[in-house]
Amino acid sequence: MSSDRLSQQLDFIVEIDKLKKIIRRSPLTDNSRFENSAEHSWHLAIMAILLNEHAKEQVDISKVIKMVLIHDIVEIDAGDTYCYDEQAHHDKEEREQKAADRLFTLLPQEQAEEFRKVWDEFELRKSAEARFAAALDRLQPLLLNYHSGGTSWKDHNITKQQVIQRNSPIKDSSSKLWTYAAQLIDDAAEKGFTK
Amino acid sequence: MSSDRLSQQLDFIVEIDKLKKIIRRSPLTDNSRFENSAEHSWHLAIMAILLNEHAKEQVDISKVIKMVLIHDIVEIDAGDTYCYDEQAHHDKEEREQKAADRLFTLLPQEQAEEFRKVWDEFELRKSAEARFAAALDRLQPLLLNYHSGGTSWKDHNITKQQVIQRNSPIKDSSSKLWTYAAQLIDDAAEKGFTK
Repeated sequence: MSSDRLSQQLDFIVEIDKLKKIIRRSPLTDNSRFENSAEHSWHLAIMAILLNEHAKEQVDISKVIKMVLIHDIVEIDAGDTYCYDEQAHHDKEEREQKAADRLFTLLPQEQAEEFRKVWDEFELRKSAEARFAAALDRLQPLLLNYHSGGTSWKDHNITKQQVIQRNSPIKDSSSKLWTYAAQLIDDAAEKGFTK
Repeated sequence: MSSDRLSQQLDFIVEIDKLKKIIRRSPLTDNSRFENSAEHSWHLAIMAILLNEHAKEQVDISKVIKMVLIHDIVEIDAGDTYCYDEQAHHDKEEREQKAADRLFTLLPQEQAEEFRKVWDEFELRKSAEARFAAALDRLQPLLLNYHSGGTSWKDHNITKQQVIQRNSPIKDSSSKLWTYAAQLIDDAAEKGFTK
């Protein structure tokens, strides 16, 4: 196995197996365990295929799919940062930039640049694709939390107002998805899933 | 939450959360547990992005990505069938067809048809995209088994010849990937990972 192009690609592919070990705070809908970042990314990719018709602006769906498949790879080094943990967010960007520097450069140069560009675009939220990918990245844990009976909200004493604030960026990309999400949050609060 | 188009899409999205509970026979590379079919599908999608340049025939990469994201969803009803289990393969097709009938028709009609078409194309292996997706679907567990020290081969007394036979369809899509895979299998046998 020489150090040629294919070996660089396969080294990266083997390295990112570790994303399956990064545990998120969202439970599976049956509450059997918490979700990991690799299966979360798969779920978002399917959502991107099915829901892109609801984006306000036309999106390049291939780019959105790449974005959601790649967006959490940095967590292999940086860990998952819980969205309601303000303390951990202080150095999140620094940790993730460092992780991106190490991980993507395992790839052949132009693929490293491509992955980095897609990830940077997602992080900046300046394009329609990045905003749509970010909307899915909020909606998916909302669905898991709702259908599991509010597990992670209850565990961390999260209020309805915090859930609204966390999820409101959905409306930057899709009024239709935000209307649905807002109904779900109302219903969750009525059921006592939020504080 | 009415029974409109968006609700049908979200019902499907919630239903396929179950793919995260379908356990495969391949271990993670660190041998900590077995892989599930959702994270496996994510891994294949990244491989598709990185390795499509090695396919013999030009492939529509968007289609390959969709194929690998969708290819295992039927396992929610049909279960994962271990590739070396000849007995279980007798009714695999029937179980999976039934599963496809139920699962994809949860979606709005034209999306149900699109998903079914992509899945059928994958199953038939007649297109360059299906052959490439199938090659990745062999190569990925080979990588996991090799890097974990041959866990699932040892568990099931799998011979080198069985591994070669199982993986040889890789060459229908890519000589380059097959050359690499064959070296890996030789090396695995020398290390005593296969029988």
